[in-house]
Amino acid sequence: MPDRIDFQTDPSRYRHWRVTYDGPVATLWMDVDEDGGLFDGYQLKLNSYDLGVDIELNDVVQRMRFEHPEVKVVIMRSAKDRVFCAGANIRMLGGAAHAHKVNFCKFTNETRNTYEAAEADSGQKYVAAIQGACAGGGYELALACNHIMLTDDSTSSVALPEVPLLAVLPGTGGLTRVTDKRKVRRDLADVFCSTEEGVKGKRAVQWGLVDEAVPNARFDAVVAERAAEFAAASTKPDVAQGITLGPLDRSFADDGSVTYTFVEVAVDRAARRADILIKGPDGEAPDNVDALVAQGDQSYMLRLARELDDAVLHLRLNETELGLWVIRTQGDPDAVIAHEALILGNPGHWLCDEIRQYWKRVLKRIDVTSRSMAAMVEHGSCFAGVLAELLWSVDRSYMMEDEFEGDNRPLATVTLTEGNFGAYPMGNDLTRLQTRFWGQRDVDELRDHIGEALEAEAAEDAGLVTMILDDIDWEDEIRIFLEERASFSPDAMTGMEANLRFAGPETMETRIFGRLTAWQNWIFNRPNAVGESGALQRYGTGRRGEYDMERV
Amino acid sequence: MPDRIDFQTDPSRYRHWRVTYDGPVATLWMDVDEDGGLFDGYQLKLNSYDLGVDIELNDVVQRMRFEHPEVKVVIMRSAKDRVFCAGANIRMLGGAAHAHKVNFCKFTNETRNTYEAAEADSGQKYVAAIQGACAGGGYELALACNHIMLTDDSTSSVALPEVPLLAVLPGTGGLTRVTDKRKVRRDLADVFCSTEEGVKGKRAVQWGLVDEAVPNARFDAVVAERAAEFAAASTKPDVAQGITLGPLDRSFADDGSVTYTFVEVAVDRAARRADILIKGPDGEAPDNVDALVAQGDQSYMLRLARELDDAVLHLRLNETELGLWVIRTQGDPDAVIAHEALILGNPGHWLCDEIRQYWKRVLKRIDVTSRSMAAMVEHGSCFAGVLAELLWSVDRSYMMEDEFEGDNRPLATVTLTEGNFGAYPMGNDLTRLQTRFWGQRDVDELRDHIGEALEAEAAEDAGLVTMILDDIDWEDEIRIFLEERASFSPDAMTGMEANLRFAGPETMETRIFGRLTAWQNWIFNRPNAVGESGALQRYGTGRRGEYDMERV
Repeated sequence: MPDRIDFQTDPSRYRHWRVTYDGPVATLWMDVDEDGGLFDGYQLKLNSYDLGVDIELNDVVQRMRFEHPEVKVVIMRSAKDRVFCAGANIRMLGGAAHAHKVNFCKFTNETRNTYEAAEADSGQKYVAAIQGACAGGGYELALACNHIMLTDDSTSSVALPEVPLLAVLPGTGGLTRVTDKRKVRRDLADVFCSTEEGVKGKRAVQWGLVDEAVPNARFDAVVAERAAEFAAASTKPDVAQGITLGPLDRSFADDGSVTYTFVEVAVDRAARRADILIKGPDGEAPDNVDALVAQGDQSYMLRLARELDDAVLHLRLNETELGLWVIRTQGDPDAVIAHEALILGNPGHWLCDEIRQYWKRVLKRIDVTSRSMAAMVEHGSCFAGVLAELLWSVDRSYMMEDEFEGDNRPLATVTLTEGNFGAYPMGNDLTRLQTRFWGQRDVDELRDHIGEALEAEAAEDAGLVTMILDDIDWEDEIRIFLEERASFSPDAMTGMEANLRFAGPETMETRIFGRLTAWQNWIFNRPNAVGESGALQRYGTGRRGEYDMERV
Repeated sequence: MPDRIDFQTDPSRYRHWRVTYDGPVATLWMDVDEDGGLFDGYQLKLNSYDLGVDIELNDVVQRMRFEHPEVKVVIMRSAKDRVFCAGANIRMLGGAAHAHKVNFCKFTNETRNTYEAAEADSGQKYVAAIQGACAGGGYELALACNHIMLTDDSTSSVALPEVPLLAVLPGTGGLTRVTDKRKVRRDLADVFCSTEEGVKGKRAVQWGLVDEAVPNARFDAVVAERAAEFAAASTKPDVAQGITLGPLDRSFADDGSVTYTFVEVAVDRAARRADILIKGPDGEAPDNVDALVAQGDQSYMLRLARELDDAVLHLRLNETELGLWVIRTQGDPDAVIAHEALILGNPGHWLCDEIRQYWKRVLKRIDVTSRSMAAMVEHGSCFAGVLAELLWSVDRSYMMEDEFEGDNRPLATVTLTEGNFGAYPMGNDLTRLQTRFWGQRDVDELRDHIGEALEAEAAEDAGLVTMILDDIDWEDEIRIFLEERASFSPDAMTGMEANLRFAGPETMETRIFGRLTAWQNWIFNRPNAVGESGALQRYGTGRRGEYDMERV
């Protein structure tokens, strides 16, 4: 078992996946190493997965977009005989602590979402080509693809056997995607989700569970045909050459603090707090897109996104007792705006678009992070454009008002850019400003402020920060807030934040993280699933779970 | 502690509420009897409430609509000094089993929703006139009102102290209504919901938590003024005389079975099943609305709705181990259609509208019921119009195909009416047919079938039933389904059904029963709230809860 779960990997270190490239078509082979589990105590049989398998998959999808922009179709296949994927490893789940189960599912959900994002944002279409059994999380992986092919034979099926077999839900999107994406009629979905053995062939097509059932003998041929068709139909512009995502520059201190180039995470364990400092650019924005491509993974916008993403994942999984994240920025707001402007000013340029969309994903990850988060808009800070989004992703924000004694940094400001009006939508398909002012005001009115460095009073008037405090009140107020927040029940915080952060409309994505996940988490606490005689614990013993039959 | 929680009551038996009527304005006084708790072990101090208080409130709201259609404005006030309502009784919550907590919250949520439904559907506007402390569930009651007045003094405030004080959520709508209905900015909502002492006067108005803050000296005068204004502005037609809702004709057998006039509930405890039989009308439909009014609570449509509502509530709260409900109908489909036609054919008539809207509420109650439900469309059944809605409220339906040996009842049919296309919307604001075919087909195409008695094959072709079975398969298939369904983990069923039943779009109402409730139920299982040292158990001991600070 690793001391620290590391979300950084690269193809040379993969144990569970490999990718073959053939022009616009990539084939993603799932070939899980039974002995490559992240923790001890289970074997990853039948292409079952744990967090380690998903960390690699996340890396694959990310590199596909940055390193292989020529790819238009990704065919997902199994390298095993007679099994596509058996889903999340049950022994791993049975042995995992509640917090690990929940965090694992969240990351898995985010990775599934990247399949759909790849097609929607970059025109990279994921296709599931299923031969053999495809069950539980395996079918949930297929559901995240945008075309599902199933071999029409006696052993190949799709199934969500979680409910009858394990007394838990198909919780990484399964229930929601079956109804919301595949549009399976709810009563047929009910039959499907309570049938252990799943559904095969033509019936699977009829019910909408897969797009086509293909005779085994012709399977490879039809897969190749579809790949060619989808590639030909793709409107994704041709890109000859991607960029390389090199290793991050990152060092961990003994106390758990982490330093990247543009991100510093300082751990205050006694206060149960992580202080996250984001630095502004260290140089001017590239002159043009060619210069940006030349900078590649060293360009500010991409490098910062990668560092922040890694820091968020690290803190989420490895530092579960740091219940409060405080986000600060320091740097030149104009420089942030200049770097963002190059990205936003060249829509249609593949790398600019990829960087913007990556920021969208990183910010979404923050939105669904189960930690209390606050932003401190201090003097010398650079909450502008993309970094200002953080102010509306966190639970609340405090801003310094007027000069502070002995503080010579430039006065705290918040600056809106065009980017705050649509470049980084949340999971609910609204911008963070729209969500913030949902049903309350027309966000477009704020466009008048674009480019204006708003000092405290103006930022408060515009509704962009929660509270402004002057030199007299700042220290005490902040101290009281930090102490109080860190003293509350973490569970109540999680529930409260999950509700308040997503006012108003819901989408399939928010329903997965809201409705589905919340019910799954409830079930993950119930003896019928996780108790000594619960189904998850008894799995593989040949004995069924024993249930308290009370309905609640 | 009562053997059986009874949802039937009437004003002569109220212990906690009283209503004064003054033309179009009613004043609803909350005056909870400390010693009137439904169970032993707690006192209902400070206008705190338990399920018993809410059962009376539910009765008040229902009678207001049927017995007092002259009422256009309902002013909700406290009869206690210095306190409006302290919310759900914490000692009751601390002592209650998980299932009771969850069921209590569900019923409370439904009752809160009836406030909003009364204005939306009947033009009866609920106004909260708050003097003194209004905390937790007390403020959630106020949030359900459509205008909130708060005394502007040093002791009156609104608060949701659940998170900081009790480590649970404001789970009966609070978090959702603050953002979705009151449109409180999410960061201000975060501050509000983590501030034990709440918010007073002008700030409460500024943040959108209340509509007006009124000086104490002028409070009664301004309340009377508002009542008169709202009554004058009301578009509700004048109705001189309501009808009386008399006691239900109901008898319980020793085995827990219940018989009403048109509803029979047979309990099969060994099979963990309740068989619910709904009977068709025993007479012809009233000739016209005057005849309907003359029949009053004895009219088929109203009487059946009341009986079914009571049966659902009884089974939910008193029979938690009956995890499977099987719904059957027997009777003449044409008679059902005729009775429904009078109701639907006279929109704008107050009693027709009230009966239709009551059916909407009863059907919604079934939608959110945490039981596996199936409908059996047998020979002799009358699944037509309003009763056909049950087919799409339950999880699945089975229909008899062709003749069965020795069965002389008329062949099983399903008949659509105009009512299935908008008269009884679900909580998601869609019809059950729209939800069923969401994203899949245009439901209006089905209008061609209105009035047609569809036999099995035609009903299956139209997608109206899950499965059709002939005489050879029926018995075995149904037996296997019933046995299997009753053997699954009830928790997994609850989670699965809560997801599959609400495909697609969400509304404030579905978000309350989905996102908010699911998170609350999760928290209701966590030691930080309900463990021995949890906040709910420690409440009133002077010691704070002790928390495991891990974030999940």
